[in-house]
Amino acid sequence: MLPQAQCEIAVPFYDVDSMNVVWHGHYVKYLERARCVLLDNINYGYAAMKQSGYAWPVIKLSLRYARPAIFGQSLNVIARMTEWEYRLVINYEIMDIVTGHGLCKASSTQVAVNMETSETCLGSPAILEQQLKQSGYL
Amino acid sequence: MLPQAQCEIAVPFYDVDSMNVVWHGHYVKYLERARCVLLDNINYGYAAMKQSGYAWPVIKLSLRYARPAIFGQSLNVIARMTEWEYRLVINYEIMDIVTGHGLCKASSTQVAVNMETSETCLGSPAILEQQLKQSGYL
Amino acid sequence: MLPQAQCEIAVPFYDVDSMNVVWHGHYVKYLERARCVLLDNINYGYAAMKQSGYAWPVIKLSLRYARPAIFGQSLNVIARMTEWEYRLVINYEIMDIVTGHGLCKASSTQVAVNMETSETCLGSPAILEQQLKQSGYL
Amino acid sequence: MLPQAQCEIAVPFYDVDSMNVVWHGHYVKYLERARCVLLDNINYGYAAMKQSGYAWPVIKLSLRYARPAIFGQSLNVIARMTEWEYRLVINYEIMDIVTGHGLCKASSTQVAVNMETSETCLGSPAILEQQLKQSGYL
Repeated sequence: MLPQAQCEIAVPFYDVDSMNVVWHGHYVKYLERARCVLLDNINYGYAAMKQSGYAWPVIKLSLRYARPAIFGQSLNVIARMTEWEYRLVINYEIMDIVTGHGLCKASSTQVAVNMETSETCLGSPAILEQQLKQSGYL
Repeated sequence: MLPQAQCEIAVPFYDVDSMNVVWHGHYVKYLERARCVLLDNINYGYAAMKQSGYAWPVIKLSLRYARPAIFGQSLNVIARMTEWEYRLVINYEIMDIVTGHGLCKASSTQVAVNMETSETCLGSPAILEQQLKQSGYL
Repeated sequence: MLPQAQCEIAVPFYDVDSMNVVWHGHYVKYLERARCVLLDNINYGYAAMKQSGYAWPVIKLSLRYARPAIFGQSLNVIARMTEWEYRLVINYEIMDIVTGHGLCKASSTQVAVNMETSETCLGSPAILEQQLKQSGYL
Repeated sequence: MLPQAQCEIAVPFYDVDSMNVVWHGHYVKYLERARCVLLDNINYGYAAMKQSGYAWPVIKLSLRYARPAIFGQSLNVIARMTEWEYRLVINYEIMDIVTGHGLCKASSTQVAVNMETSETCLGSPAILEQQLKQSGYL
């Protein structure tokens, strides 16, 4: 089993555009917040990544929008890790917290980059497997 | 032939994260700006869309990141329309303006929604074809 | 007595700049969120304002920064209404949620604008006093 | 005489809120862009600041909004240095590029912080005066 996490977002006024819906680009922030919770849960958040000597840039991102989010709406963002051996893939679902209706599905792909050599790792470094195991996964 | 457009972006300080590169979510803004130029060029920008009775929400967005952008870098964002009959697909390329090196490729898909009925159109409304023809395309 | 409200902010990664602190412009978002809580508490949030026929644009904003906020820090944002009769003035304090250390003090001034005539009201419309009284203030 | 600079902003769609005007917090980005041009002009932009061993955090910011900016509007942002000896004060004016009508006036105050000791300098370090003189000011 692989980790999953969730976070709640109350859509702020400044994310809503003149069509009265959340501008599609702001969803990337919501994904980031759920991903941060997930990675913190396995003790491999930004600080731990840096300390481990690896940056994990997002190299691929895709989103599918089904329903628009509106001002004040409470959203539930779920992040699920689906791959970790060669690259880190996380899938996301954004839902209305009350009705459960799906608003957006998304996926991000990250790869490890050795911060000293700036080289992209062919496989995920041992530290990721370690953190997963120590957190009770795998 | 279908329209294409470009715009120049000077990476602002507030788009750069603590890894000293543009945070991946900000690229969506750069795409939006190039798309706005493209649609303005065929006289079918946001105001004209609204006036035509159709909203064109983005229903799909994907990005592939090859190289990070940094503070002060001048970027060239190219937007190319590739489909328009059933949905509006625009492909993007973000490059360093000096070296021409590619940083990011992306694609957005939009569909027409009748603003009165809130119904998604099965095909693009006649107005889009009209604007394309009047601007010398098709 | 006049209303006050608070909200908690967990500093997100995308608000942190290359100096490893929250870029000063992002604090305006934190103020907005606390102000929204305050106005919701007296049933005069954005939707109620619109329904009442008045927009309340911010005409003045000032911020003083004492300490920088960093990634992951939990902030407490307090908003206190200090004037309402002629214009709506709200003062803010942003503190570290654990230590209580102050990071930022700010103040916003809003005036009522009649949405039909686009005219700025010389005094706050009766609805604001009403909402304050019905919520147990004044 | 002290330096001044300007930059042009085309209001992007994603800066406009559901009241069809630029959300007041986004103006801080426009100020930042004009300030960057001004500081680049005297060869003391972010990179040069860092290299000189000083960070220049904004410790005070104030804005007065006169007219709202709207989508697509072309703005002219003017930045004028007014103090530099003890702290760096820059005043701003945002105007419609066509009519010259003023939309916003603002002011930012920055102080030098020694990046090694993290101590705030009582006066601006010599490097600022030097850059001003070498650029033909003072």
